Amino acid sequence: MKQAIGVIDSGVGGLTVASELMRQLPKEQLIYLGDTLHCPYGSRPEEEIKRFTWNMVHFLMEKDIKLLVIACNTATAYTLNDLQQKLDIPVIGVIQPGARAAINATKNKRIGIIGTEATIRSSAYTKALHMINADISVISESCPLFVPMVEKGVLSGTEAFQTVNESLQSMKDCTDIDTLVLGCTHYPLIKDVIGEVMGEHVQLISSSEETARETSAILELQDLLNKDDTFLEHQFYTTGELNIFQKLTNNIFSHHLDCLSKIRMDKVSI
Amino acid sequence: MKQAIGVIDSGVGGLTVASELMRQLPKEQLIYLGDTLHCPYGSRPEEEIKRFTWNMVHFLMEKDIKLLVIACNTATAYTLNDLQQKLDIPVIGVIQPGARAAINATKNKRIGIIGTEATIRSSAYTKALHMINADISVISESCPLFVPMVEKGVLSGTEAFQTVNESLQSMKDCTDIDTLVLGCTHYPLIKDVIGEVMGEHVQLISSSEETARETSAILELQDLLNKDDTFLEHQFYTTGELNIFQKLTNNIFSHHLDCLSKIRMDKVSI
Repeated sequence: MKQAIGVIDSGVGGLTVASELMRQLPKEQLIYLGDTLHCPYGSRPEEEIKRFTWNMVHFLMEKDIKLLVIACNTATAYTLNDLQQKLDIPVIGVIQPGARAAINATKNKRIGIIGTEATIRSSAYTKALHMINADISVISESCPLFVPMVEKGVLSGTEAFQTVNESLQSMKDCTDIDTLVLGCTHYPLIKDVIGEVMGEHVQLISSSEETARETSAILELQDLLNKDDTFLEHQFYTTGELNIFQKLTNNIFSHHLDCLSKIRMDKVSI
Repeated sequence: MKQAIGVIDSGVGGLTVASELMRQLPKEQLIYLGDTLHCPYGSRPEEEIKRFTWNMVHFLMEKDIKLLVIACNTATAYTLNDLQQKLDIPVIGVIQPGARAAINATKNKRIGIIGTEATIRSSAYTKALHMINADISVISESCPLFVPMVEKGVLSGTEAFQTVNESLQSMKDCTDIDTLVLGCTHYPLIKDVIGEVMGEHVQLISSSEETARETSAILELQDLLNKDDTFLEHQFYTTGELNIFQKLTNNIFSHHLDCLSKIRMDKVSI
């Protein structure tokens, strides 16, 4: 199946998922749309999150994608079920793969979740974890300062450490979790700082890697893998300013990939 | 969906997959069938492997299972495509999850595969790896002595070390793999010995954990998870001697699980 995998995100955080998809599925073409104009979604009301997400979906469905990845925890929390019911292609969110990886990783069955206010308010992680195992203790905390900090490009150093340390104080001191889910696709970009704050005994789960692996599994099971060797250029679209998107894209991909030159990047209205 | 997950294996090796399924999906009921009478499959001709596997499938389909896991690499290599085409429930093998995990783990794109003679002869792992990434170098080696050793209960000590060391000599000395797939469900039971022989720089991939995780993902995506809290007893069937099966089951589950008392075990003819 030569059709592309569609990836939507509220901005640039989902590029961590795109990066993993490229690494684990190098023969697949991606079409990515980041709604940077409306980012962050995490502090918006439910109605807006749904409307903006559906706008992105309509844009990508016109490109005849074969599978949709919602690479944004907030959008997953509020639209996954609806999209799975209404679209006739497989739809994969980032919450369920992260929840499964956390269940796989925890030994003491105490799992922490950090995310945006909207993601934490939705209890989507707690529901996903308890649907599989009702014995898991879940401790959630929203970290509203992380996304603006990452979007500013502050990924390490004193400012990053202080912000993370203050936000995670109670998670660190008042719980005995052994696993922490980075429930927002921006957070893998400050994973080192979060790890430094939480300590070595807490395993950090990034949904990006897990989501890419599940995408690979679903493509194979449904016989949707690209069997052709002709490489098709990835396409990246943003609703916001192209230069800011480009800068953050460079930040993310320079660590993982050297195929940025193969990327087409456009600004669009949706 | 209260129906059970069916698991088939040529013998007891698949219990490592069953054990992981129980850990990662504690609300799901398993019905396991191990064809210990005809074990090992790994040195048998293709026709026999297919016939024995289909006999197991017929037995489990009568139990109205909702998903089938082929927890045997040899049976996966020779029957997965056929079963996926002919059964109207999802069918998951152990080769593809292992291949995906190896692609995720490798840094130098050099992956070793060890398995039975039949699994290695089928090139199923090489095909699965190259379908996703044609740039991967695959080095395969059959280890015909491992299954009989494990079935005898020799899982550690001098005899185990010497057998493993001799079998993996060329894999260890003549390749620069950074990832080794344990391409037989018996091998996780001697994972420590294999790790000691290969050294810390080689990551060992066990399909059991990966297969359970993918099963969890497929159940959720296809809305097949058990949402009921009533626990249903697992059922274990063997075509061979019950006492040998029981002994090896104790060996495997004592490390992972304490729910053996909840298991019903029967000898059957298929």
